Amino acid sequence: MTGAASSSYAYLGPEGTFTEAALLQVPGAGSARRVPASTVGAALDAVRAGSVDAAMVPIENSVEGGVSATLDAIAVGDPLRILREELVPITFVLAARPGATLGGIRRIATHGHAWAQCRTWVDKNIPGAEYFPASSTAAAAYDLVGDPGESSGDAHGAAGHDAAICSPLVAERLGLAVLATDIGDVTDAVTRFILVGRPDALPPRTGSDKTTLVIPLPEDRPGALMQILDQFAARGVNLSRIESRPTGQFLGDYFFSVDADGHVEDARIADALKGLHRISPGLRFLGSYPRADRRSPAVERHTSDEAFGAADAWLASVLRPAADAHRGSKHSRLTIEASPT
Amino acid sequence: MTGAASSSYAYLGPEGTFTEAALLQVPGAGSARRVPASTVGAALDAVRAGSVDAAMVPIENSVEGGVSATLDAIAVGDPLRILREELVPITFVLAARPGATLGGIRRIATHGHAWAQCRTWVDKNIPGAEYFPASSTAAAAYDLVGDPGESSGDAHGAAGHDAAICSPLVAERLGLAVLATDIGDVTDAVTRFILVGRPDALPPRTGSDKTTLVIPLPEDRPGALMQILDQFAARGVNLSRIESRPTGQFLGDYFFSVDADGHVEDARIADALKGLHRISPGLRFLGSYPRADRRSPAVERHTSDEAFGAADAWLASVLRPAADAHRGSKHSRLTIEASPT
Amino acid sequence: MTGAASSSYAYLGPEGTFTEAALLQVPGAGSARRVPASTVGAALDAVRAGSVDAAMVPIENSVEGGVSATLDAIAVGDPLRILREELVPITFVLAARPGATLGGIRRIATHGHAWAQCRTWVDKNIPGAEYFPASSTAAAAYDLVGDPGESSGDAHGAAGHDAAICSPLVAERLGLAVLATDIGDVTDAVTRFILVGRPDALPPRTGSDKTTLVIPLPEDRPGALMQILDQFAARGVNLSRIESRPTGQFLGDYFFSVDADGHVEDARIADALKGLHRISPGLRFLGSYPRADRRSPAVERHTSDEAFGAADAWLASVLRPAADAHRGSKHSRLTIEASPT
Amino acid sequence: MTGAASSSYAYLGPEGTFTEAALLQVPGAGSARRVPASTVGAALDAVRAGSVDAAMVPIENSVEGGVSATLDAIAVGDPLRILREELVPITFVLAARPGATLGGIRRIATHGHAWAQCRTWVDKNIPGAEYFPASSTAAAAYDLVGDPGESSGDAHGAAGHDAAICSPLVAERLGLAVLATDIGDVTDAVTRFILVGRPDALPPRTGSDKTTLVIPLPEDRPGALMQILDQFAARGVNLSRIESRPTGQFLGDYFFSVDADGHVEDARIADALKGLHRISPGLRFLGSYPRADRRSPAVERHTSDEAFGAADAWLASVLRPAADAHRGSKHSRLTIEASPT
Repeated sequence: MTGAASSSYAYLGPEGTFTEAALLQVPGAGSARRVPASTVGAALDAVRAGSVDAAMVPIENSVEGGVSATLDAIAVGDPLRILREELVPITFVLAARPGATLGGIRRIATHGHAWAQCRTWVDKNIPGAEYFPASSTAAAAYDLVGDPGESSGDAHGAAGHDAAICSPLVAERLGLAVLATDIGDVTDAVTRFILVGRPDALPPRTGSDKTTLVIPLPEDRPGALMQILDQFAARGVNLSRIESRPTGQFLGDYFFSVDADGHVEDARIADALKGLHRISPGLRFLGSYPRADRRSPAVERHTSDEAFGAADAWLASVLRPAADAHRGSKHSRLTIEASPT
Repeated sequence: MTGAASSSYAYLGPEGTFTEAALLQVPGAGSARRVPASTVGAALDAVRAGSVDAAMVPIENSVEGGVSATLDAIAVGDPLRILREELVPITFVLAARPGATLGGIRRIATHGHAWAQCRTWVDKNIPGAEYFPASSTAAAAYDLVGDPGESSGDAHGAAGHDAAICSPLVAERLGLAVLATDIGDVTDAVTRFILVGRPDALPPRTGSDKTTLVIPLPEDRPGALMQILDQFAARGVNLSRIESRPTGQFLGDYFFSVDADGHVEDARIADALKGLHRISPGLRFLGSYPRADRRSPAVERHTSDEAFGAADAWLASVLRPAADAHRGSKHSRLTIEASPT
Repeated sequence: MTGAASSSYAYLGPEGTFTEAALLQVPGAGSARRVPASTVGAALDAVRAGSVDAAMVPIENSVEGGVSATLDAIAVGDPLRILREELVPITFVLAARPGATLGGIRRIATHGHAWAQCRTWVDKNIPGAEYFPASSTAAAAYDLVGDPGESSGDAHGAAGHDAAICSPLVAERLGLAVLATDIGDVTDAVTRFILVGRPDALPPRTGSDKTTLVIPLPEDRPGALMQILDQFAARGVNLSRIESRPTGQFLGDYFFSVDADGHVEDARIADALKGLHRISPGLRFLGSYPRADRRSPAVERHTSDEAFGAADAWLASVLRPAADAHRGSKHSRLTIEASPT
Repeated sequence: MTGAASSSYAYLGPEGTFTEAALLQVPGAGSARRVPASTVGAALDAVRAGSVDAAMVPIENSVEGGVSATLDAIAVGDPLRILREELVPITFVLAARPGATLGGIRRIATHGHAWAQCRTWVDKNIPGAEYFPASSTAAAAYDLVGDPGESSGDAHGAAGHDAAICSPLVAERLGLAVLATDIGDVTDAVTRFILVGRPDALPPRTGSDKTTLVIPLPEDRPGALMQILDQFAARGVNLSRIESRPTGQFLGDYFFSVDADGHVEDARIADALKGLHRISPGLRFLGSYPRADRRSPAVERHTSDEAFGAADAWLASVLRPAADAHRGSKHSRLTIEASPT
């Protein structure tokens, strides 16, 4: 392994998932080694163990689930860093073996989440179709060609189903016939994935960044959450996501997972992080990375890097005479004798 | 239908799910009509249509998923009300046909979430076991006895698997052999379910209540979330859950789903709701209902019902002389002539 | 005393003070009975005793002092209500007996505050002039004409001084020669006075009003002041004045005197007052009255009377089904049996 | 001038005022050069001009007035620094020439504020006494002995009065007969004075300090004041005084004068000052100095110097890998090719 070209990635497999599609959006990933993993935890552990450089996993509701699992998996254990996020359009196709026709479909396999989203279409267009649960949309497609490989994870062997609801990517890759496209209830659905690497990485600031944090609630009382959120609001930092999550240790104990607009190298984010650390020292920094939507936050003058720099300079000027005076400056002739008390 | 005994309930099926276990914790539900539904949405629609009185659905991460789906399903569409919550211990058993032994198990079916949680145990105790995805833990168990019924939803027909990871409830009900108990990674796991009814219901105040709200973010700017949360903090109301959810209409548009400690008939909650309505008039009230853990919040003097009552009385006394004066009271002899300006 | 025309007023005397000038700005006061008082406390006591209908006193820094005294005098004792405020331009003249010339002036009397403000002019134009302190600018003028009357309060008898620094009003009224005008350091100085009546009065809302409150600090800790001010900020209410005042009982015990933009009949002010009463029940309402500058605050939609009204209506609609249900409504068929626990 | 003994001080004179009494409480001031000034502004100007090292002036309501004048005088003009504060008990005596008796007193001179506070006693004990205004309580005493000196400032010459209400200090110094003691309405009255020096001085931190600031209101809108005060509250800093003051430039334009508990060398105060500078860059630091009452604030763990230090160290550790990575660290093998966009 001797250069950038030799980067390697894990992802939530099997091949052909929307997660692999997200990974393929990463520049250079098309020619890199790509290793499917059966769970989010396994993908992240591969990063921790050093067997891959980074892992692509889902972070928002998607047909591949994994959201809560992902949040929880990166919140504990050895530290990791989020390196980038990818948005992937979620469109479902009905795929079958070459030669099949819509009229002949009776048994459809897919992941439960995809089934829920496409059921309206199925009920209308293939009344009476049977549902075969699959561990992923991609696995349902692989089973059709009789070769799940290591990546499928399912054990159906010779599939009992004759169609799969899956991504366009896997249908094309396997040479399946696409009988219908865009069959989900929600058109224009987009889901979000993150690329996770080791904790010595920090993507450079682009001006359109996002910072992800895990913040344990220091005390379970009214106002404790406000005190946390005020660290952002007081520095003009917007949050694009917040979720309370039980720590799992006992009821009533929470942590918060948040995405804040900005990069830790922005003065307002750095200052907010220091404020958060003071009230919740168990804070975990999960990374600053470019926003997939390239939107830049409006930064008010008083939270700009310039305002922070000017404040630092001003405070130094306030303290400077004191420093001189402590060294026996001749500027002030006044010496007040110590009070006898 | 003339009494309590005739209540009817939908739940996320099939029979034997942890959701049915939650429903069976409701007093009287054991003898009521119980209707399994294939999705959370279907269960809620049965309530809206009036074909059942209420529906039990999962609201926190569970092996039966449904969390985001539940949050979103009750946030839109015809109004519903949460009537109560139930906590259910989540423990998995490995179940097989009577006579089977652990040594003979090769193919295990279950829901993907349960598989993820029990995989450590399986790898250690049944190395090389194959995984068969099922649409639910209960469906995996039903398939073993060759009679999925209407409730299974899966189409495996004659199951290719020889064991299921499922709830103790369904194993016992089907007379399966329990080969191992408590095989999940997390012991003491508890998940939360809610009973949802029609919007004309409001459970009485018990002193240990929870209020669930859906609050659209009025503007996507720093401070807008703080303004919402301040409505709670300013009245000493603690939040036990908060989640931002994209509205799905376009990126950057959010609503918040929160659980607040207290009942809408508590003055501090009623006042907070009015404050929220002013800043986010699209607010949706999803109910006030008893907390499953029976914990009561500590209420400070200045947010007690008494403090609210005293403030109302004081303000009335401030305004009263004015009312009298406007009616031509003789208390004040002072009449200031109108300014010429 | 048989009608409005017979209103009577006290004011901080003697005759010819800026305070009397403020009183004369009140419609109808020119023809009313006007009673000079020697101190702010005496003027207010005349209102409390019923011997006059209202009293005009200074409330902002002025050459007639009285600010702290006024704040403290209306903060304790029998309740009073502020009825209106007046802004008066403060301009000083150098007045002397008819026939006097600037060149002949050697000894100048005035109140200490006026002396401080006019000293620059005096040093430049009448070098070497001596200063005679007087109890008020008006008293200094009266002494020139040899008839201090009851209203002067000073005992100089035949004055040793030959000029007075005083208001244009008193110079004109006494027929004095005005040797120089506008001799103060600050041109365009304006000071503020308030008309104080009995607590059964509440001037009607004009849309451009001010509300004055005295708010004891409930606890001397960081955040207690914020909690008070948040009652205003959370309702979009601007403060045009705030002063902490020691209660005088022991060090570290404070009350706040504030002016808020708006009238107690504005919903946002009424709601803020109720919030204040909950956290500081010793709150004192000192009146809502028209602003002298006629400026109207910008009211955001969510703090308008309409928003408050809509929130009240919405909350009632949330609670109504419950009220019906408690009365045995047939809308809901669901009756959950009481838990055995 | 080569040592402490050579310090020199101005104070609001004449000799014998409560302000001189405050100055004499300063260690070493008894043997220092003490220069009475006729106004607060003149005393401060002597510091600015370098003719004295520091000036003692009143800062809280007192019989010597000067409060607003002092606040305003240190808020503008060349910078100054407050070096310490002194609390002085305010007790009045009735003093006359040796040999005089209470029965023979007819004409009493004093400052208007002292007259207001002692009038109840005078009305009861010397009915019919006449009042002679004086420019200060000390001047009234000096006039009795026929030698006002330069310091008196008044021009009465041979006094028409036969008693003075003044401080015990001046009565004793002039050898006057004290006919009655403690004749004010308020017993245990204490007033506060400040010692003001040049801006190169900063008294060392004692653990029981006070910081005085002048903060222009950046915008006249609801919430602007909250934003300022939140800089203190968010760092657990208590305020012991707050006053809004019109800037005098036009109505509706304010600055705030505040005293905060703590020293600028306390991390929480330094951080609050930087926050204030960002939102109100015209902020003026008037000094950190020991509290006269020696009370120390309770500092919460999360606002301690230790918490600030730990937060700085943590943030540095978060940023360090990035710094290394930017220098071409070999820790991370991952190099993502630049996006074509």
